[in-house]
Amino acid sequence: MKAHATEDEIQEIVRLVEQLDYSAHIIRGVERTVVACVGEERGEQHSLTHLETAPGVERVMPVLRSFKLAAREVRPEGSRIKVGNAEIGGKKLAVIAGPCAVESKEQVEAAADGVKRAGAHLLRGGAFKPRTSPYSFQGMEDEGVRLLEVAGKRVGLPVVTEIMDPHDIDLMVEHADMLQVGARNSQNFSLLRRLGRTRKPVLLKRGMSTKLEEFLMAAEYILAEGNPNVVLCERGIRTFETATRNTLDLNAVPLLKEWTHLPVVVDPSHGTGMWSLVTPMALAAVAAGADGLLIEVHPHPETALSDGPQQLKLNVFADLMKSVRAVAEAVGRSL
Amino acid sequence: MKAHATEDEIQEIVRLVEQLDYSAHIIRGVERTVVACVGEERGEQHSLTHLETAPGVERVMPVLRSFKLAAREVRPEGSRIKVGNAEIGGKKLAVIAGPCAVESKEQVEAAADGVKRAGAHLLRGGAFKPRTSPYSFQGMEDEGVRLLEVAGKRVGLPVVTEIMDPHDIDLMVEHADMLQVGARNSQNFSLLRRLGRTRKPVLLKRGMSTKLEEFLMAAEYILAEGNPNVVLCERGIRTFETATRNTLDLNAVPLLKEWTHLPVVVDPSHGTGMWSLVTPMALAAVAAGADGLLIEVHPHPETALSDGPQQLKLNVFADLMKSVRAVAEAVGRSL
Amino acid sequence: MKAHATEDEIQEIVRLVEQLDYSAHIIRGVERTVVACVGEERGEQHSLTHLETAPGVERVMPVLRSFKLAAREVRPEGSRIKVGNAEIGGKKLAVIAGPCAVESKEQVEAAADGVKRAGAHLLRGGAFKPRTSPYSFQGMEDEGVRLLEVAGKRVGLPVVTEIMDPHDIDLMVEHADMLQVGARNSQNFSLLRRLGRTRKPVLLKRGMSTKLEEFLMAAEYILAEGNPNVVLCERGIRTFETATRNTLDLNAVPLLKEWTHLPVVVDPSHGTGMWSLVTPMALAAVAAGADGLLIEVHPHPETALSDGPQQLKLNVFADLMKSVRAVAEAVGRSL
Amino acid sequence: MKAHATEDEIQEIVRLVEQLDYSAHIIRGVERTVVACVGEERGEQHSLTHLETAPGVERVMPVLRSFKLAAREVRPEGSRIKVGNAEIGGKKLAVIAGPCAVESKEQVEAAADGVKRAGAHLLRGGAFKPRTSPYSFQGMEDEGVRLLEVAGKRVGLPVVTEIMDPHDIDLMVEHADMLQVGARNSQNFSLLRRLGRTRKPVLLKRGMSTKLEEFLMAAEYILAEGNPNVVLCERGIRTFETATRNTLDLNAVPLLKEWTHLPVVVDPSHGTGMWSLVTPMALAAVAAGADGLLIEVHPHPETALSDGPQQLKLNVFADLMKSVRAVAEAVGRSL
Repeated sequence: MKAHATEDEIQEIVRLVEQLDYSAHIIRGVERTVVACVGEERGEQHSLTHLETAPGVERVMPVLRSFKLAAREVRPEGSRIKVGNAEIGGKKLAVIAGPCAVESKEQVEAAADGVKRAGAHLLRGGAFKPRTSPYSFQGMEDEGVRLLEVAGKRVGLPVVTEIMDPHDIDLMVEHADMLQVGARNSQNFSLLRRLGRTRKPVLLKRGMSTKLEEFLMAAEYILAEGNPNVVLCERGIRTFETATRNTLDLNAVPLLKEWTHLPVVVDPSHGTGMWSLVTPMALAAVAAGADGLLIEVHPHPETALSDGPQQLKLNVFADLMKSVRAVAEAVGRSL
Repeated sequence: MKAHATEDEIQEIVRLVEQLDYSAHIIRGVERTVVACVGEERGEQHSLTHLETAPGVERVMPVLRSFKLAAREVRPEGSRIKVGNAEIGGKKLAVIAGPCAVESKEQVEAAADGVKRAGAHLLRGGAFKPRTSPYSFQGMEDEGVRLLEVAGKRVGLPVVTEIMDPHDIDLMVEHADMLQVGARNSQNFSLLRRLGRTRKPVLLKRGMSTKLEEFLMAAEYILAEGNPNVVLCERGIRTFETATRNTLDLNAVPLLKEWTHLPVVVDPSHGTGMWSLVTPMALAAVAAGADGLLIEVHPHPETALSDGPQQLKLNVFADLMKSVRAVAEAVGRSL
Repeated sequence: MKAHATEDEIQEIVRLVEQLDYSAHIIRGVERTVVACVGEERGEQHSLTHLETAPGVERVMPVLRSFKLAAREVRPEGSRIKVGNAEIGGKKLAVIAGPCAVESKEQVEAAADGVKRAGAHLLRGGAFKPRTSPYSFQGMEDEGVRLLEVAGKRVGLPVVTEIMDPHDIDLMVEHADMLQVGARNSQNFSLLRRLGRTRKPVLLKRGMSTKLEEFLMAAEYILAEGNPNVVLCERGIRTFETATRNTLDLNAVPLLKEWTHLPVVVDPSHGTGMWSLVTPMALAAVAAGADGLLIEVHPHPETALSDGPQQLKLNVFADLMKSVRAVAEAVGRSL
Repeated sequence: MKAHATEDEIQEIVRLVEQLDYSAHIIRGVERTVVACVGEERGEQHSLTHLETAPGVERVMPVLRSFKLAAREVRPEGSRIKVGNAEIGGKKLAVIAGPCAVESKEQVEAAADGVKRAGAHLLRGGAFKPRTSPYSFQGMEDEGVRLLEVAGKRVGLPVVTEIMDPHDIDLMVEHADMLQVGARNSQNFSLLRRLGRTRKPVLLKRGMSTKLEEFLMAAEYILAEGNPNVVLCERGIRTFETATRNTLDLNAVPLLKEWTHLPVVVDPSHGTGMWSLVTPMALAAVAAGADGLLIEVHPHPETALSDGPQQLKLNVFADLMKSVRAVAEAVGRSL
């Protein structure tokens, strides 16, 4: 309550709180009175936050976090998500690698061969590309999805690709092993809800300005519809710093591991936007406790149709895998 | 080029640049050599930015902004967008007002009566609500759209409502006069492209972490598909400041007016998240040159099913309109 | 407390809280138990936040804001700060204008004449300049202070200049009427405390990443030492947006006016970094309720030794003053 | 130049550029003309950025970074800074550990014993504390510096403490081995310049909203005065994320190592603000290539007079050191 809230105002709030089926506890301090409200959150209809407009009220402060199915307490041992012949969330790290975009049969197959040889566990490749400009290359679309599937099958790696439009779900579910929700769609609730009605593993990227609690609420949209196969991906947030494309927030890794049972992977390619930072930040992610990595790899980054500056050459990726193995073992994981 | 780039590296870059159909100009400075590339941008396939991975290259810096159809130069006098019997973009300000969410026939009609009486030009109301939590009230959906339409017709105001899912476009186009794209979907390119294929006026909100140039590129997605009826809406960005829900970025108003011919309206309700700041920030928006306002108004904010703390009571809104009129006249506009 | 906190852990926390001279109230909810702590905050020694490391504790959340002398409740009618023959904080707006840096006798006198003629109330000019680079012009220092004093006296305007080093306080107190603390020193507590021991009016700028509550705590450092003459200045914060030099946060104006009795002025020159945005944002600041403006004006901005792009020419400033007057009257103020 | 700049405007810019002793190269593109300016930057008097106010000019874009003495090219092999019997910057990592604040002889000695035993190389402890509130514990000041010195001598560790006020330099230089400049003073140029006139090693923390280029310019202030002994410290930046106290920006580590020869250490205590995240983020910092760590350790964090929630207990710190050793070896470093 405000400093000069009257006794009548306080009693009126108590009445309103009880009407919303919470119990109210009045705590009288030296300067102010606090009304503590206890009860189960039952959705917005009963939300106490609207009391902020009532006379005498200074602020309404929620005490509990709002995610439920994603909470660590639900599965303290942590979730392991199966994707084809790979698994994300166990002691063994999972590395997802491949080109930013599928550009041709030759390109995706060269990438698939290279990442498989270097020890990656899943193959990625974008077929529908969310580009800032409508005049940029938008991806090979349906054909890209099929080329990716064929390339993955050939080398024996499950494939991950991004879905942008609910309209494409059937196609995607048929041809891909895991569907990625990109940063720009991380709060596209229509899309999340529809993915929740499938049982396909979802790789959910954090949005550029998504708080960790909101990130888990986005996962909650998928979980609440019945799909438990969600993997979270930290890929850098937007800050004032312009020297790197994004600011990779590795604090998120150990904090998410405290808060949720869902696996957490890290994408240092988008998280830095500079290929020379990808290896050190991949190692840092593993040291911080990540369950896996998402690395953009391209047979010829200098001619890539999108995000060239952040994609690794195949030999650089192979070196990265060796270094990752050493750090993984130093922190009690394996590759 | 890097400080120690060799002559061979420089010549190789010139070769690559010319291969991409740009002309290359070598400028030799005291410490470094710069290769200036001149030519028309032809989409990502020819993008020079990928040269950043080539040997000897330090950075690739684009000089021109990338929006084209949205650029001021295309229509120096500014666009005026007709929405039913209202117009946004002229000397006369346009005020869009109504509840955050349509909650019932009674509520939306009371709101419609109130905002019409106070002088608003369009009626808003959310039927599909993008909520952070899947457990919060998600809107009245189809029924909400129809209640809004009826309420608008009764008082003679065109109606604006948010679209979240491409699937709902037909319904929305039939029953609403203007479709709002919310902050969380501001880079949902699938949705933007589909809206571009209609001729419905679109109220495009800036995302929480969307740079102004990206905001115009999002508008460009709609314009490029052939729909010229786009109105931009500044609604606050996400910053480190937590005292207000968002940081209303009014710098955006005069800067967008320099860069684009599209009308710019301001939403101080989301931009502040606190009803007591809505009136001063609405006045500030008008003084900064906004073409209109988007104000959340509710007959009974303290029982609202969403965003109660930022919605104005009807009498407060009526007072706001009086103050807006005075400031509008002071800056050579009218209401 | 955490979800699975034991009764022993709860009782131990109660014991610790009471040992710190707070009273403890146990509130048992469905999922969690909350221990509410009531008492007067007595500085860090007794701070409850350290209990966050104790077993069973999930989070410690402070309920009250921590500024005291700056709080609105201390002087509900608002403070008026006298600076020479000017006053900041009344119904009449105060306009502080002048060049970014004092560069020569001719320059500062031309600026003084121009801003006086246009109706400014105080003259500003930097003598000690905080520059990002040690190789940039650092100001005319002592001589600059004296040139400013002379120029102000000649036209009858009190003068404002920035202090960077406690070492210069005596010089500054003698020659200037108001001392500015710049954004980079807004949490330089040594400097603030020393200014608190003078009675000189202080113009305290918000730091680039200072939250409003921290801003008032910085003012509190000055007030707590006995100097009540503090004027707050919003000058733009640092965000992800790079189109403008800073993001002028006008939400701060009405919110600070709610929270504190101290006057609030706005600096649209630094807040935007672009001269073409200065006038619209100055008008917006006045409409939002600012008590004054700080405007950089230079007789010849194109040859200025610092911050040229954001300084107004004298005739543009004169036009700005006319527009400000109109908006001021529209919101019940005068110039 | 702007799209419609006239030939006269272009020629006038060329004239102005040449008058500033740069050479001008006109590059005519399809849509726009660019004037490239080549020459040595000679400080702000000649700065080209002011041309942004000239007719026909759209933007002035600097191409080169502005730090010089800090640039990697100056000492490609990297700097090693000696601090007493320790060294920062070599293959061997340097760990600085100790309490946030010196609180008593017993406390600082217990901390010194503990961190020495666990293998730390330098002892830290704050005597002058920059606190957001003037009512919080401000440190033991002079006495604190002396207690720290004694504690360090006893266990054979050089000591690091924060300097806030130029006034204290003589005291600090006498009693401490390395002086820390805190985040809030990272652009206090008066202080930096004075530290540049000593030869004491300086531990320069990044400010909460300091860009990496500005961070190096702050170091440049010290270097330019003749003191080469600067160590950079990443300690978290301020972003929209509130789940952690700051966002530790580990991207900064490999990027700074590319740009500068100065050693880079990381402070995961402030960088996270939560003791449970300190160990994983310390490991991540080492994996990313940091030259050292700054860790807050307290014999009894739950009774600490400042920053309790982020300080480690002695046994937790000892465990951290073991894990750090393993990761260091995995990336080719030692402890």
